[in-house]
Amino acid sequence: MEAGNGGAGATRWRISRPPANGAPLADAGSMSIRTVLGRVISSVDASGPRPVLALGSGDPTASACYRPPPEAEDAIVEALRSREHNGYSPTVGVLPARRAIAEYLSLDLPYQLSPDDIYLTSGCCQAIDVMISVLAQPGSNILLPKPGFPLYESRTMFSNLEARHFNLIPDRGWEADLESVESLADENTVAMVIINPSNPCGSVYSHDHLAKIAEIAKKLGIIIIADEVYDHLAFGNMPFIPMGVFADVVPVITVGSISKRWLVPGWRLGWIATCDPNGILKEAKVDKSIENYINITNDPATFIQAAVPQIIANTNDDYFNKILNLLRNSADLCYGKIKEIRGIKCPHKPEGSMFVMVKLDLSCLDDIQDDLDFCCRLAKEESVIVLPGSALGMKDWIRITFAMDVSTLENALERIKSFCQRHAKLEAQ
Amino acid sequence: MEAGNGGAGATRWRISRPPANGAPLADAGSMSIRTVLGRVISSVDASGPRPVLALGSGDPTASACYRPPPEAEDAIVEALRSREHNGYSPTVGVLPARRAIAEYLSLDLPYQLSPDDIYLTSGCCQAIDVMISVLAQPGSNILLPKPGFPLYESRTMFSNLEARHFNLIPDRGWEADLESVESLADENTVAMVIINPSNPCGSVYSHDHLAKIAEIAKKLGIIIIADEVYDHLAFGNMPFIPMGVFADVVPVITVGSISKRWLVPGWRLGWIATCDPNGILKEAKVDKSIENYINITNDPATFIQAAVPQIIANTNDDYFNKILNLLRNSADLCYGKIKEIRGIKCPHKPEGSMFVMVKLDLSCLDDIQDDLDFCCRLAKEESVIVLPGSALGMKDWIRITFAMDVSTLENALERIKSFCQRHAKLEAQ
Ligand SMILES: Cc1ncc(COP(=O)(O)O)c(C=O)c1O
Ligand SMILES: Cc1ncc(COP(=O)(O)O)c(C=O)c1O
Repeated sequence: MEAGNGGAGATRWRISRPPANGAPLADAGSMSIRTVLGRVISSVDASGPRPVLALGSGDPTASACYRPPPEAEDAIVEALRSREHNGYSPTVGVLPARRAIAEYLSLDLPYQLSPDDIYLTSGCCQAIDVMISVLAQPGSNILLPKPGFPLYESRTMFSNLEARHFNLIPDRGWEADLESVESLADENTVAMVIINPSNPCGSVYSHDHLAKIAEIAKKLGIIIIADEVYDHLAFGNMPFIPMGVFADVVPVITVGSISKRWLVPGWRLGWIATCDPNGILKEAKVDKSIENYINITNDPATFIQAAVPQIIANTNDDYFNKILNLLRNSADLCYGKIKEIRGIKCPHKPEGSMFVMVKLDLSCLDDIQDDLDFCCRLAKEESVIVLPGSALGMKDWIRITFAMDVSTLENALERIKSFCQRHAKLEAQ
Repeated sequence: MEAGNGGAGATRWRISRPPANGAPLADAGSMSIRTVLGRVISSVDASGPRPVLALGSGDPTASACYRPPPEAEDAIVEALRSREHNGYSPTVGVLPARRAIAEYLSLDLPYQLSPDDIYLTSGCCQAIDVMISVLAQPGSNILLPKPGFPLYESRTMFSNLEARHFNLIPDRGWEADLESVESLADENTVAMVIINPSNPCGSVYSHDHLAKIAEIAKKLGIIIIADEVYDHLAFGNMPFIPMGVFADVVPVITVGSISKRWLVPGWRLGWIATCDPNGILKEAKVDKSIENYINITNDPATFIQAAVPQIIANTNDDYFNKILNLLRNSADLCYGKIKEIRGIKCPHKPEGSMFVMVKLDLSCLDDIQDDLDFCCRLAKEESVIVLPGSALGMKDWIRITFAMDVSTLENALERIKSFCQRHAKLEAQ
């Protein structure tokens, strides 16, 4: 080849125009939990003698005790081996799965969902993607809980939808600050997001609080997106009540998945359920918008969709109770241990999901700058990974995942204790 | 409940503000192949005595002869039964799968791809979604083939990226009209899409034509997105040559999947491969943009990802050759039969993928308005489904999928023949 002829170096490639700083895409993608955890994990001393203990993510499947029910696995194998589910599925999902999910959700509702109310998605993540994309309109805004689940922030940013945050109040069991909700909303507010049971707070809302949320939303004329990906993972005194119970007051769009209750986050099977007994969403053609959008998005694997009816039908209460007992024990252990540690504080005992929010008392801790610093040094010195609260909008808090086998959890909490002791301010000791 | 108090009817729900006409979402979603096929299918006379013969979609899995290799099924079951792949995967995909795909693609390239060049996606569809989203910038445009694959149009519309179309020329074996490519591109053009083997044309490009495409792209300074979802499905005289062979001339981003070659479109496992031996994409941080975006999108099911190395390693050439023979026979049959039918014409014998484009000669057909009318009436009168070309930007053409068992195909072509005969213009008979 002649020099200067054909070599790619000579061309000015148009792609090389760098995206503007603060481009939505770059910002949206860089604030995911996985990105932040990646930074923390990179602080681990790889030459350290002790195994890394991961309390950072919402994926308990590394612990042998958090295995999916064998019935669910069997259902997948059966669907695959039938060779009937290798082709594309309808974009809304296969009918038997939508029917099974409609029936499953209706068990806890005062009315009956129909299969047409259900849209299958690639996990609850895609359900969030779909709903944000469908609701985003130029100039509109959405109310998000703080702390919350950062995918909402990423997706709203990507869709140019303005996020406005209402606080969850630690000393009131992480209930939503409903006065602030009222002051945040305006005529361009399209929806309000409620995550219950809560990631990251570990709280479960009472009937009374949910009713108040419904009334406020109705008063403001905004619909509710109820993120119930942790549905039924309530192991304290408060039972899980779906937001859809209040759908005669306010239209509710429930998003969920089999990821958490069946402990299969890698299977990527979720749903959108329109809880709309008064037909308000239908009248506003929200169902059509959802259909239009999912026409150009991805579907869960067809044979996994096909297995859903069996997964739901064949998993029995013993399995669910076993998991709830494990979570309850771990939550108790975690809460008790944290009480013994100076420098961190837990305002509310977790009673749902698999997380607890813990406040750093930096006045007791020497030379720790903030939550990110705390997490990176904990990773480096103790090989323990926890999530910096600033990833969730809560500076100087951390989120601990307690869904793991008890000995690992104890070990990790011991290490956190040593860390805090070693970094305790002298005058405070 | 008191009348007028608490009833949802009284509230003015903000969601009910109808989206503006021509909203990108509504338009983008309504032009999918599935939406158009849905319209055609709804014309079928449900009380008709004959089974519906579906030649409309690119999913041959309904025919028993187009089954995936048992080895692929076994690989999935093994990955699932290991219970090691129930958790979330890294957003770029699990490393063994990325390595296996890098090696698989490198077999046909003059250089070696690394696992870091590979990003796993939920089918090739999501690879398209990712690339369009990553490249879309306000004011920019992208060059798309016409006819092409409508998801590109939907996605560019949704991302506010302007689509500009270059023609594929039927009488030149559906080669791209490269002069028009030159006149369409300007300094805001971000990429050019090439689909080879071609959906919908059934063509396979020669080394010479691919080299010309690479030179034009280099001259214009635009990168190439090479949609090779039908890679290796070339059964004519022309061998399949990946665009990545020319990546020393022009940066190539290859998108593909196991959907077609392994006949598992429902498994939703695809990839993006950056073919970038000169590091041009890397310098422009395209890799970072892809990573940022896939941080907020969905992953394929983890156990399906985990099965990829075995799926690739264990499927042997006998399987692939058997499928190629089936496709070749069906293509020949289809091409031969169409020649016998007055009113439709096939300018180029298919030699790849599973489709053929057929031109309607409306001057020979009585009372048929256009391609949509042709397809709807064919559905109604003969229970045969084919895709209207207007879904692909080709008015008064139709696309026929020939990947099905021979007797069904013969039956369908007979019915198309009867239909054309019945609608033949008298003077033309
Ligand atoms: C509040 C919340 N919503 C949605 C999701 C996504 O769930 P999935 O795994 O079903 O996509 C998660 C996952 O952790 C979550 O915590
Ligand atoms: C040209 C083209 N690209 C992409 C796709 C999507 O493929 P996948 O099933 O892997 O998502 C198709 C499917 O028919 C196609 O024809």
